[in-house]
Amino acid sequence: MLKYDPAKMVERFKGCLANKKEIIEIADKVSQEGFSNIFFIGVGGTITYAWSIQEILKPLTTLEYYAEHAADFNTLGSKKFTKDSLIVVSSSTGDTKEVVEAVDKAKAIGARVVGFVDTPGTPLAEKADYYIPGGSYYRYYTFFLRLVHNNGEYPEFDEMYANLEKLPELMPTVAEAAEKDAEEFARIHRDDAIQYLIGSGNMWGPTYSYAMCIMEEMQWMRTKSVTAGDFFHGTLEVIGRDDSVILFYGEDATRPQMERAEKFLHTICKNVTVFDTAKYELPGIDKKFRGLFSPIVLGGITGRIGVYLEEYGKHPMPIRRYYRKLDY
Amino acid sequence: MLKYDPAKMVERFKGCLANKKEIIEIADKVSQEGFSNIFFIGVGGTITYAWSIQEILKPLTTLEYYAEHAADFNTLGSKKFTKDSLIVVSSSTGDTKEVVEAVDKAKAIGARVVGFVDTPGTPLAEKADYYIPGGSYYRYYTFFLRLVHNNGEYPEFDEMYANLEKLPELMPTVAEAAEKDAEEFARIHRDDAIQYLIGSGNMWGPTYSYAMCIMEEMQWMRTKSVTAGDFFHGTLEVIGRDDSVILFYGEDATRPQMERAEKFLHTICKNVTVFDTAKYELPGIDKKFRGLFSPIVLGGITGRIGVYLEEYGKHPMPIRRYYRKLDY
Repeated sequence: MLKYDPAKMVERFKGCLANKKEIIEIADKVSQEGFSNIFFIGVGGTITYAWSIQEILKPLTTLEYYAEHAADFNTLGSKKFTKDSLIVVSSSTGDTKEVVEAVDKAKAIGARVVGFVDTPGTPLAEKADYYIPGGSYYRYYTFFLRLVHNNGEYPEFDEMYANLEKLPELMPTVAEAAEKDAEEFARIHRDDAIQYLIGSGNMWGPTYSYAMCIMEEMQWMRTKSVTAGDFFHGTLEVIGRDDSVILFYGEDATRPQMERAEKFLHTICKNVTVFDTAKYELPGIDKKFRGLFSPIVLGGITGRIGVYLEEYGKHPMPIRRYYRKLDY
Repeated sequence: MLKYDPAKMVERFKGCLANKKEIIEIADKVSQEGFSNIFFIGVGGTITYAWSIQEILKPLTTLEYYAEHAADFNTLGSKKFTKDSLIVVSSSTGDTKEVVEAVDKAKAIGARVVGFVDTPGTPLAEKADYYIPGGSYYRYYTFFLRLVHNNGEYPEFDEMYANLEKLPELMPTVAEAAEKDAEEFARIHRDDAIQYLIGSGNMWGPTYSYAMCIMEEMQWMRTKSVTAGDFFHGTLEVIGRDDSVILFYGEDATRPQMERAEKFLHTICKNVTVFDTAKYELPGIDKKFRGLFSPIVLGGITGRIGVYLEEYGKHPMPIRRYYRKLDY
């Protein structure tokens, strides 16, 4: 397997679990203090995590939660944002311009800021009232589901966490099982005119993100991502027999939307590629948490797709035309 | 001007104002009864109206408002949805499968349903507790801003409405002023490999909708729509010198995001097309309502683009490959 280091992969994901104690302490503290609502503020890839959390929280909790793009938060604002709001931000670099501005705005009004920031010593790590070293679904699930637990709506928190802890060790088997399909997809479709990507529920965030942050940003591939729900209300008409369509299936309650899209697509298109978390064995994981964990499992699959997109595209991921080359 | 009937245009938009009295009566009644939150439920084009209303309400009100895709509402649900919720739906045909299912779900729990439905006698028109004959921004603004007014947060309601009433008569001048740019854009770019569309704030809904419902569905053109905020976090890297990029500028508080995108784009791309509501004179309209009205003004512009897309594409709008031809 090309560019594959299972031990490193396990170590990286285990690292996401290393902050359990401090994340729970922070969640318990803000729950105890109380808050009127939660704003998870991000841009690009990080806002898509906020979308997934939103879809996960919808059926679970009455807590008021808003996934907000930092650029909108900074310009449009929200009348629901007050000093009693809880602001959550996430950043890899720790200096994302719009997010820094949002945090300054939050602090000016006296709202508490929880920062999931990969790089210590950066503006966002320094400005956060509560600092957690790094993002990832592992950490977000721990934090947000703990808040729901503290709101009396998620008694299975400990059970969920015990399952979550088993995931890192399972990721190499996911990657290995995805290898053949990932390589084949990239080999055949890397240079197609456009990629259509379809996702739903908590998989919509990762689907949008894969199209924009990996294919567009890091591979300069043309994409259009669309929710399974909206696919039938416009995008279907542009799909012809030879277009490349990718479905990122998860296992939450929106799965029937994906089945509907796939069934239709097979009748009009011959390049339908399905990546479905349900097809991957996860020994030791309780069935009832599989839907919640789908975005994490998908990461094991898309990691392998990426390796072959860059290989067949002769386009290493780190290449950028504009990012940190030009001012904007 | 090709396919242009200003008198009919004015008449159509005036028709959108014809239901003022009943819309206000319904809004006042539901405000008096009270509600815990509002779910504006739609699909495709109609959900994008709900998104615009969401961006408009954000800075104005503390009312709890959710723009919800019917397919998600039906499968994932929401713990915030109760018998005290106010459900708003909109449909042109009156029989949109997912929306009918959402309304049945709402009625089963005892929630009130307001239906903006173009076609009387259809399932959605019949099922709604409160029926309003037709959608459109004119009617949505009247309804939702009246709710905000009733919540003590929009004292300028009457003033807004007096301005809104002037818009239909102004739309022909908008269409005529857009004519040259619309024709030129379509003539040069109709058959480009892909169209990138950028919008922000209350213009994001119409931007997404124009890409999906007009260009993809009715013209079979490849598109990618992206918010101005997210443009800088992925999509920018795929844009090359010769790509066609369209910016739908409005006049709400998010306008600086569009200016940032445009400024950058002119440095790396030679096919940047700007349609900006601010460039259109609207005599008699108070400056403070121009941002609110931008999506309506845009409709006068995009109407002219569409005429030339179908003309140069030799692709009349009503053609469908799959819609109501196949079961799905």
